[in-house]
Amino acid sequence: MWQLFQFPLCPFSRKVRLMLGEKGVEHGLVRESPWLKRDEFIDMNPAGQTPVLVEDSKGTVLIDSNAICEYFEETIDRAPMIPGTAVNRAEVRRLVAWFDDRLYGEVVGPLIEERMKKRLISRDPPDTRVLREAMKVANNHLDYIDYLLDHRRWLAGPVLSLADLTAAAHLSVADYLGGIDWRGHKQTTDWYAVMKSRPSFRSFLGERMEVIAPPTHYDKVDFF
Amino acid sequence: MWQLFQFPLCPFSRKVRLMLGEKGVEHGLVRESPWLKRDEFIDMNPAGQTPVLVEDSKGTVLIDSNAICEYFEETIDRAPMIPGTAVNRAEVRRLVAWFDDRLYGEVVGPLIEERMKKRLISRDPPDTRVLREAMKVANNHLDYIDYLLDHRRWLAGPVLSLADLTAAAHLSVADYLGGIDWRGHKQTTDWYAVMKSRPSFRSFLGERMEVIAPPTHYDKVDFF
Repeated sequence: MWQLFQFPLCPFSRKVRLMLGEKGVEHGLVRESPWLKRDEFIDMNPAGQTPVLVEDSKGTVLIDSNAICEYFEETIDRAPMIPGTAVNRAEVRRLVAWFDDRLYGEVVGPLIEERMKKRLISRDPPDTRVLREAMKVANNHLDYIDYLLDHRRWLAGPVLSLADLTAAAHLSVADYLGGIDWRGHKQTTDWYAVMKSRPSFRSFLGERMEVIAPPTHYDKVDFF
Repeated sequence: MWQLFQFPLCPFSRKVRLMLGEKGVEHGLVRESPWLKRDEFIDMNPAGQTPVLVEDSKGTVLIDSNAICEYFEETIDRAPMIPGTAVNRAEVRRLVAWFDDRLYGEVVGPLIEERMKKRLISRDPPDTRVLREAMKVANNHLDYIDYLLDHRRWLAGPVLSLADLTAAAHLSVADYLGGIDWRGHKQTTDWYAVMKSRPSFRSFLGERMEVIAPPTHYDKVDFF
């Protein structure tokens, strides 16, 4: 069986978990804290990052969330997550890169740094200036998602895709860390409520990261 | 015909140019300086980044270097650049992500910031501490490429792939900016000499970015 090396607030791990859930791939979870730089983990992935997906019986090691998602898109026909024509597929991948680079870099990464890593590792107080900026930019990202949903049923087009899974993975971590103000974003809120109610998403809602509690709406599917 | 919006020292644009060259896709180049935030360019790509590939007659706009490369891998059979089994393909994509995230983030990005952007935009002097660190880390990256080439004919396996194109694109920009010390890296140097001699690579060698001259070995295929 596949074993996924991950930690609960890693958005890239969550993306892979959503993909595995949608594709119906059975897997176990192994908790890995990449900041500990465990030797065996670095040997497996020189980048030292989660997620890593391992199938011991076949000696297969898959690294990088997008490489993993593309692997299952290629090997499992069920529930295509990069669907449609080559142009449609390019749009899915554009948005995946947008959320992985921009939403992560501007919002989710800073929230993880300030609200999780400083709490767990360095024990420094969070930098409120950085947090304020991340939450301001989060609002711009929700505006962009509202805009996409004004023109499309799902983020990349008429059907659910890896773009939705990726956005939901990042937003779920930002939401856990109290970085999202959903007010005034009806389209995104409605879409996110649907994402939250998918079976592939459910396992996140009960998970907790030690010493960090999510806001009360975090695990409510209809969240207000 | 396809038009690629790019600038000469954008490694992600270079990756796409190598891919188009290997696939035999005719294209024109449009010079775009993303730091100018030209309105028409932002309208085309909200991320404001090169490369963007446009086919006006069909109304097709492709954004993000990997989305573009996957598009041509899917639509043009010639010269597969993500070749082999699903596991082989995952390894190609792992390395593409490694070079795009780590080699770019730790080496190429800082070199562009210090040696190009500060020169062209802010007119500040480069931060020598940042440059020294980037060049030190560059050496670790060349060690890793040496290691890969000790075990494989090309970076991701027995045949040329997008991993080679991606590494060569980033290294070519770092080399232009004087950030690479090739000494002591025979495997990487031999591999890079082969990459440099490919027709898809040739067009870079004569191109110059105004006010920034590359080192004398930059455009020599056998570079010593």
